Amino acid sequence: MTYAQTTRNAMQDNDTSPVTDDEIFAGHEGGKLSVAATRPISRPRDLSVAYTPGVAKVSRAIAEDASRAQRYTWADRLVVVVSDGTAVLGLGDIGASASLPVMEGKSVLFKTFGGLDSIPLVLDTTDVDEIVETLVRLRPSFGAVNLEDISAPRCFELEDKLKEALDCPVMHDDQHGTAIVTLAALRGANLVLGRDITKQRVVVSGAGAAGVACARILQEAGVADVTMLDSKGVIHPGREGLNPIKQRLAETTNAAGLTGGIADALKGADVFLGLSGSTIDPALLGSMAEDPIVFALSNPDPEVQPDEAAKYAAIVATGRSDFPNQINNVLAFPGVFRGALDAGARAITENMKLAAAEAIVAVAQDDLGPDRIVPSPLDPRVAPEVAAAVAKAAVEDGVTG
Amino acid sequence: MTYAQTTRNAMQDNDTSPVTDDEIFAGHEGGKLSVAATRPISRPRDLSVAYTPGVAKVSRAIAEDASRAQRYTWADRLVVVVSDGTAVLGLGDIGASASLPVMEGKSVLFKTFGGLDSIPLVLDTTDVDEIVETLVRLRPSFGAVNLEDISAPRCFELEDKLKEALDCPVMHDDQHGTAIVTLAALRGANLVLGRDITKQRVVVSGAGAAGVACARILQEAGVADVTMLDSKGVIHPGREGLNPIKQRLAETTNAAGLTGGIADALKGADVFLGLSGSTIDPALLGSMAEDPIVFALSNPDPEVQPDEAAKYAAIVATGRSDFPNQINNVLAFPGVFRGALDAGARAITENMKLAAAEAIVAVAQDDLGPDRIVPSPLDPRVAPEVAAAVAKAAVEDGVTG
Repeated sequence: MTYAQTTRNAMQDNDTSPVTDDEIFAGHEGGKLSVAATRPISRPRDLSVAYTPGVAKVSRAIAEDASRAQRYTWADRLVVVVSDGTAVLGLGDIGASASLPVMEGKSVLFKTFGGLDSIPLVLDTTDVDEIVETLVRLRPSFGAVNLEDISAPRCFELEDKLKEALDCPVMHDDQHGTAIVTLAALRGANLVLGRDITKQRVVVSGAGAAGVACARILQEAGVADVTMLDSKGVIHPGREGLNPIKQRLAETTNAAGLTGGIADALKGADVFLGLSGSTIDPALLGSMAEDPIVFALSNPDPEVQPDEAAKYAAIVATGRSDFPNQINNVLAFPGVFRGALDAGARAITENMKLAAAEAIVAVAQDDLGPDRIVPSPLDPRVAPEVAAAVAKAAVEDGVTG
Repeated sequence: MTYAQTTRNAMQDNDTSPVTDDEIFAGHEGGKLSVAATRPISRPRDLSVAYTPGVAKVSRAIAEDASRAQRYTWADRLVVVVSDGTAVLGLGDIGASASLPVMEGKSVLFKTFGGLDSIPLVLDTTDVDEIVETLVRLRPSFGAVNLEDISAPRCFELEDKLKEALDCPVMHDDQHGTAIVTLAALRGANLVLGRDITKQRVVVSGAGAAGVACARILQEAGVADVTMLDSKGVIHPGREGLNPIKQRLAETTNAAGLTGGIADALKGADVFLGLSGSTIDPALLGSMAEDPIVFALSNPDPEVQPDEAAKYAAIVATGRSDFPNQINNVLAFPGVFRGALDAGARAITENMKLAAAEAIVAVAQDDLGPDRIVPSPLDPRVAPEVAAAVAKAAVEDGVTG
């Protein structure tokens, strides 16, 4: 079966008539979230239990012992999806209000796949310290923070400061969700091809939120040679004008000491990982090592169209739902937060992320193939497995309780 | 039928076995709120509509025209229930986390009676300017602000500053919800007794959030003679050490120029309105005008026990569910916010509050009696009627659109 046939088959599994604008806007009418009461208020007695006078006993109990809030409020398991709207999908800095449909969608996915309550909090400020301050003030209202669509390099500073300021799980999903699923997919691809991930040379095009986090998790997973490029080419210690993030990347990546552009970097490389928001000449893939792995993850336009990439690559993945091997963050974040909250984790550690990636691969293990290196985003087995693995890693890392 | 018999009958309408602590804590296990998706995510197509790539079209549409957020997000109809935990029920300053069960309860009532989505935001700061600043930053996330359980006199300053800073409905319910329902009940009582509200002398004991707002709404409703007392006695211009709020009260109330304590104020008064958190000697009610009206609204202990008050008063009301004539804010706030949001109001005006009170009385109109001066808190007719009246008043006041 050719790659094109596989693609068609994957598409035929579903209703793949084009999604229309009408359908999209109708699907957002009135918003995508709703709040419900966990118990109905229909009798005077219900009111006396849930509100006055009964609720006073619960408030007093929490005032006496703050840990009781975990048990008797929703806050401890509530994930706030936080954005300032500065890097929304491929749309850029469109502002908080316009980012809200994305954040509502994220909250829907937290509920659907992770069984977690989640609300969007979008902020009319892009000042990192003000965002931190706002969430510190709201700390008693929630249990975990999912940062979303915040521009680089601000997102790195914001995540670092928030992790310092809050005693709860904090994760910028554009960084770490992408990194977890990318690592899972790369492990899946290497299992299919019978290769050793640690022996490969990986070229990462794009040094934004996702690129930086992917490089880091790949290094932690044992990939010895990661080379990164931004819009100006290969990141190496000799380049002028690198910001502190890229300066650190220059010092910790690029073992081969490459310079130049994407053509230079791809020569002989085993893996191309595109997270750049730009496209490349497909013919460049011909200079890579034999049967390379190509992940062209930019949305909506992959760095190289999958049918073009398939002419050179043994395995191709994209971020899109209309091709096989969709690298979709929804495979990671619901289970990661669920596991962290189940374990009572105060943070999300590197080991928890690595464990999440392993769990995603494990679910697909018995059913792997060149067009199936990760489970489907809708596979209901994934989030519980990820949650269990993440919770276990949290306990092992001693960040619980 | 004696008052005691009426009370027993009212109680027999419901399951009035004492609510146990076990029942209360079980009713709060895991919290009282849950987030739901308005549309299920079960097919890849659902994901493409609600999340990527479809959601990008909705975000772009809002970026082009911000008013579209009203239609395509939940924010515009979302009520945030905001507290700093400084004056929680009768428990005082117990902090944000311990206030959360009350705020969750409030959100449940917004949903149950007003059909509005609502989330609690509790704040780990008691600085008025910081609370304002926090909500200004979060402005794109919500559609209206219900302030709750914030201590006086800070609550007055906070509400004023928030109304100035935000272009959406803002209401401190402990003030205005109480005032609306109290006015409705007083109108109901006067209808039963065939009296004219404008001719009465009303004594308000308690000059906190509720007392101040009640005095104001009674004056706006035409009550010519309102006398207020705090813990030091009658508020009058000659008193030393009045704070600015009480100084203004001294200048605008107490037409009879009274001084002294509660015994002095009650002599010949037509209405006693207790919002003080303290108790009085029932015998003092004997000095009031013939067949007075007594609202002893402090919770859980009324200023005077209703059976004692009934020895002197024609009509007695409390804040408690286990006696007739419960003055409960839930009669007002769900409909007030629903009406304000239905009308697209940018503020909640005095006329909107007065209209809410009239609507509450109107619902009970055909069924009024000494033990039924307001509808039951669970009467499903109330919130829609209040909402319609409030929306109409908003349009008349020109605060919509």
